[in-house]
Amino acid sequence: MINIGIIGVGLVGSELYSQILKSSYKNILRVVALSSSEKMLLSDSEYKPLVVNLSKDIRSHVIQQGVPVNIDDFANYLVNSKQHSVIIDCTASENIAQLYPSWLRSGLSVVTPNKKGFAGSINLFREIRELAVNTNKEIKNTNVPLVYHETTVGAGLPILSTLADLIKTGDDIIRIEGIFSGCLSYVFNTFCSLTNNTTQTFSEVVNCAKELGYTEPDPRDDLNGMDAAHNIMPQDLQSLPTSEEFMRKLPEYDDYFSKLRKEALDDNQVLRYIGIVDFKGGASGVQLIKYPASHPFASLKGGDNIIRFTTKRFPNGITIQGDGGGAAVTAYGIFTDLIKIQERVNKF
Amino acid sequence: MINIGIIGVGLVGSELYSQILKSSYKNILRVVALSSSEKMLLSDSEYKPLVVNLSKDIRSHVIQQGVPVNIDDFANYLVNSKQHSVIIDCTASENIAQLYPSWLRSGLSVVTPNKKGFAGSINLFREIRELAVNTNKEIKNTNVPLVYHETTVGAGLPILSTLADLIKTGDDIIRIEGIFSGCLSYVFNTFCSLTNNTTQTFSEVVNCAKELGYTEPDPRDDLNGMDAAHNIMPQDLQSLPTSEEFMRKLPEYDDYFSKLRKEALDDNQVLRYIGIVDFKGGASGVQLIKYPASHPFASLKGGDNIIRFTTKRFPNGITIQGDGGGAAVTAYGIFTDLIKIQERVNKF
Repeated sequence: MINIGIIGVGLVGSELYSQILKSSYKNILRVVALSSSEKMLLSDSEYKPLVVNLSKDIRSHVIQQGVPVNIDDFANYLVNSKQHSVIIDCTASENIAQLYPSWLRSGLSVVTPNKKGFAGSINLFREIRELAVNTNKEIKNTNVPLVYHETTVGAGLPILSTLADLIKTGDDIIRIEGIFSGCLSYVFNTFCSLTNNTTQTFSEVVNCAKELGYTEPDPRDDLNGMDAAHNIMPQDLQSLPTSEEFMRKLPEYDDYFSKLRKEALDDNQVLRYIGIVDFKGGASGVQLIKYPASHPFASLKGGDNIIRFTTKRFPNGITIQGDGGGAAVTAYGIFTDLIKIQERVNKF
Repeated sequence: MINIGIIGVGLVGSELYSQILKSSYKNILRVVALSSSEKMLLSDSEYKPLVVNLSKDIRSHVIQQGVPVNIDDFANYLVNSKQHSVIIDCTASENIAQLYPSWLRSGLSVVTPNKKGFAGSINLFREIRELAVNTNKEIKNTNVPLVYHETTVGAGLPILSTLADLIKTGDDIIRIEGIFSGCLSYVFNTFCSLTNNTTQTFSEVVNCAKELGYTEPDPRDDLNGMDAAHNIMPQDLQSLPTSEEFMRKLPEYDDYFSKLRKEALDDNQVLRYIGIVDFKGGASGVQLIKYPASHPFASLKGGDNIIRFTTKRFPNGITIQGDGGGAAVTAYGIFTDLIKIQERVNKF
């Protein structure tokens, strides 16, 4: 059995709790602590699983029944249990990620969809990697603490686990390329398709993406990367003070994008905005690329993520594609990480 | 540490041995027993790893240095070691698969690319599933024996592990569809493509597939399934006594396939031969289907395998695509299974 504390009971944290309780793991993965940003709810001294009515809002339950949050108390409660314990950070908080090293030192494992510990400060990333048994290069005769963060890339898709397998078994990674932004995937799949010839302008598609929830609350968080990459998003759009002004000014650039689209379609190709890590040629970066219909990236739908690993053993690549965001698939990915820990820690 | 015995030192077994010895696992996954169909080579009473010169042919080494095969002695040697031991069956033998239950009862774990234990006799499959801790439905307070056979579907692609994760976490599988035959993938990808308009006849493409090594030694083993499915391969082709006569008679059906191709391409579609397991609608089976260019199955290349899991949580599906055969990727898939066992059994 494993004791579990979930920090963050928003969409993903609540969905995870619900998935565990509806599964055959409900007596093995025991949720004994829940925390919102204001209140926390800890079980008793026997670490009995918390009982929350799944038909009700879990956050409200925590706020009504809980006490004011003290993250140290939350972690210590888990440390003091006889069973191995895991903290699941379902926030997007930099401050919470900074606590991982202290949790790991006290023997807690960590599972999280929060990117801040892995794509922020390089020192924090290195510290986490050295403390976790499964990411440390030296062999340690212990099986805890462990860190899994599959959902920080492509949510529930088996991307990081596949990359880890390729590296552990000594394969030689030649190139990693893919579309990892659900927003930019949706925008270009909709704006430029060989089978669904839309006349929508770029700004109209971005507006749709915003309404459908594909963008961050401020769409500049998604689109600004396009500027950093190749100056396809003009700099002066970035310097606008508010999200509203950005969206208002975006139509001025519609002609520019319509021209790019026409050039691609006239060539029987589509535009896709992809990231590349090129281990051999050094051509890494993010790029707006034209693909023919026969390329897997051309047939992408909706806001799907796609990744391709090209390696010595897989010269044609392993391609993994699917929904890379949303509460259900993110919670699923966290759940698979939890099962990995349970299998390594328990004797069954 | 884990002791390993490999039965079958052909292309896959030799490649696996080589991959392990070149990796950082060489002191953790210790190959102490090797067997060809004639000879076997066991290490000493201290289970020191066997030393074979990787630049030489491993099978020849086993035949030169080994003693006549006795599979019971081979298994008992592993059972008597103090470390947990795994037998890797790299044969395609039905007789070897029949031994898995006795090995599991004596505590040995099994990893294999051999389909015979999982797609042959249902009783054998059930017996294996009940004996292995990781496939048994009841919780057992032990972590051995384990059975992993990722490479029985799509070689090194993470297909069975993804399916297991979906099921364990309580997702609802709606449909599984894909192209699992490297031969039939190659044949139709080459015969019917929107980007590479070939005039080759069906029999010419099958001949190429045979020369390139995509088919089984007897191409009927690949193509006969097409008859069982939908009578697209006429019955009288199957009843021919030899592979040579089959290949000689195949051109008589070229017009039939050329007509199918023309109908598809005129419609801007391609022909693909796929397998479907439909959990809701009951439309399971193997079918020759026409796909538009925008479908992921239409852009398949070479002899790649592709699979899509459509589930309640992934309504647009998880799609996994890549090389589904060959020694390097099959050995890689076996290696990832071995790491799973090592992580579950060892304390690191």
